[in-house]
Amino acid sequence: MRCKKCPHQAAIKLQRHNIALCKTCFTEFVHTQVARGIKSQQMFAPTDRILVAVSGGKDSLTLWGILLKLGYQTDALYVDLGIGDYSLQSRQKVDYFHETVARALGAKLHIHTLAENEGAGVKELATMMHRPTCSTCGTMKRYHFNRTAIEKDYDVMATGHNLDDEAARLLGNVLHWQTKFLDKQTPTLPASMDGFAKKVKPLYRLTEREMAAYAVINKISYIVEECPMAKGSKMLVYKDVLNRLEAESPGTKQTFYWKFLDKQLKEATSAATITEKDQQRLHPCQTCAQPTSTDICTYCKMMAKAKVTA
Amino acid sequence: MRCKKCPHQAAIKLQRHNIALCKTCFTEFVHTQVARGIKSQQMFAPTDRILVAVSGGKDSLTLWGILLKLGYQTDALYVDLGIGDYSLQSRQKVDYFHETVARALGAKLHIHTLAENEGAGVKELATMMHRPTCSTCGTMKRYHFNRTAIEKDYDVMATGHNLDDEAARLLGNVLHWQTKFLDKQTPTLPASMDGFAKKVKPLYRLTEREMAAYAVINKISYIVEECPMAKGSKMLVYKDVLNRLEAESPGTKQTFYWKFLDKQLKEATSAATITEKDQQRLHPCQTCAQPTSTDICTYCKMMAKAKVTA
Repeated sequence: MRCKKCPHQAAIKLQRHNIALCKTCFTEFVHTQVARGIKSQQMFAPTDRILVAVSGGKDSLTLWGILLKLGYQTDALYVDLGIGDYSLQSRQKVDYFHETVARALGAKLHIHTLAENEGAGVKELATMMHRPTCSTCGTMKRYHFNRTAIEKDYDVMATGHNLDDEAARLLGNVLHWQTKFLDKQTPTLPASMDGFAKKVKPLYRLTEREMAAYAVINKISYIVEECPMAKGSKMLVYKDVLNRLEAESPGTKQTFYWKFLDKQLKEATSAATITEKDQQRLHPCQTCAQPTSTDICTYCKMMAKAKVTA
Repeated sequence: MRCKKCPHQAAIKLQRHNIALCKTCFTEFVHTQVARGIKSQQMFAPTDRILVAVSGGKDSLTLWGILLKLGYQTDALYVDLGIGDYSLQSRQKVDYFHETVARALGAKLHIHTLAENEGAGVKELATMMHRPTCSTCGTMKRYHFNRTAIEKDYDVMATGHNLDDEAARLLGNVLHWQTKFLDKQTPTLPASMDGFAKKVKPLYRLTEREMAAYAVINKISYIVEECPMAKGSKMLVYKDVLNRLEAESPGTKQTFYWKFLDKQLKEATSAATITEKDQQRLHPCQTCAQPTSTDICTYCKMMAKAKVTA
């Protein structure tokens, strides 16, 4: 099979676009999709300073690499969750990428270690607080990514969520008609108020399979295993179900998420609306001053409880 | 396992309600759900004349039986599609139910045979018109059910769509964000203009599995096979996917469809809005006077084409 764009041998078939591409043209295709997403969703400008949240997985490391290749000033933050071997290995992947690729391009790597700063790993924190590990992890990561972006004065915070992630999240929100979450499921979220960083998802146009292929073709060494805590998670079930639908009708995930974005745009769930709603609903946490809807934010409540329990 | 409501042996477990019921209490549960749907969705009053669309399958025959048991004046219409043995067998099931159950309760059975009235069965008509069989079948059934209800002066037309049917249809509409169809996906559709019968789906609160159990327990003889034309249909894929999600989280289908209805109600996609939209968009067909958005309705266009081809 020949590449659709040049005379080379094709390396990957993209069913939803009904094309096959060679390694070089596929790499270019991925860069174009990222650039198109950045532009169309007004994610950031060439002079903006970007902070990427990296986990050691294919999506976040690849995103860091692509943004650097596209010429953006992009540093990264890794939150060490302290999940045994999984965290050790993922930390190694992040360090290796930083040393072999990112540092030479002037990029910094920030590390936040839960065991050092919060006094315990995420599993132990979750046990102390009688909460599920995944929700505790979510709170920790959201908190530190946002806080680091704000404190270190980055213009925008980027995460490696791909089309499969966003389609799965959308399916979960739609199955329960979580209107509040649906309103916020856009690839660009504004810095709606003091203390909130602007948040973007430049990989929303690319599937999980495409990101894995990109990482392999471009020799990015990443941690292949899923987080051991994620076993049996709803998100994995939603992804599985969407893969079934995608196999029946290629392009299902893309139509589902992109048409949703078109609809949101028409209904004007715009940055302004999100900003208005956030400003009405949120105010500074009495302990840490980060935005929250209650007196004390979830992170600070957790920390208070952890201290009592520890 | 004991019945939740009486000392008898349980016959069926309802995961989504986390209860088990005996045959008698389950039958009563189904009747209550239907009665609750009729009331909450303002489907019809005790004095209304109802026309049920019957196919010979479990849902439509069961619906006819339940409405008669609940004391409603309910006649039925069977459209004979002429799909070989499948239609012969389904016609037999309908005749048998009419003779053994419905007739004694004063109910009439109307029959419309495509081969006699349209000159050919639905497969042959679809071939003549170069259209998929399922869409031709949909047009034929919608047309004749509506027309018969209007011409024979019924107050409302009822179909046997159950919760699985509605959740699958909703999933299909949501995956493509078919806003126009989403607006109309309520269990009660008003007689929005002259020529349109009011349409209701009294089984929307009951799953496919529950309807099958009801039919078996109450010894309703129905055609078990799916229509041979439906093989590989998208609806079957959506149902399959929803069954997977239901197995993971019992109650998923119910939450998905019912919360959607709550949301529609809040957003006031009410009977009035549907009526307004229909009255702006539709007018009588120049050939048959049934409501249509074009000069000639799809049914009449099909018939004109079939005549030329035959």
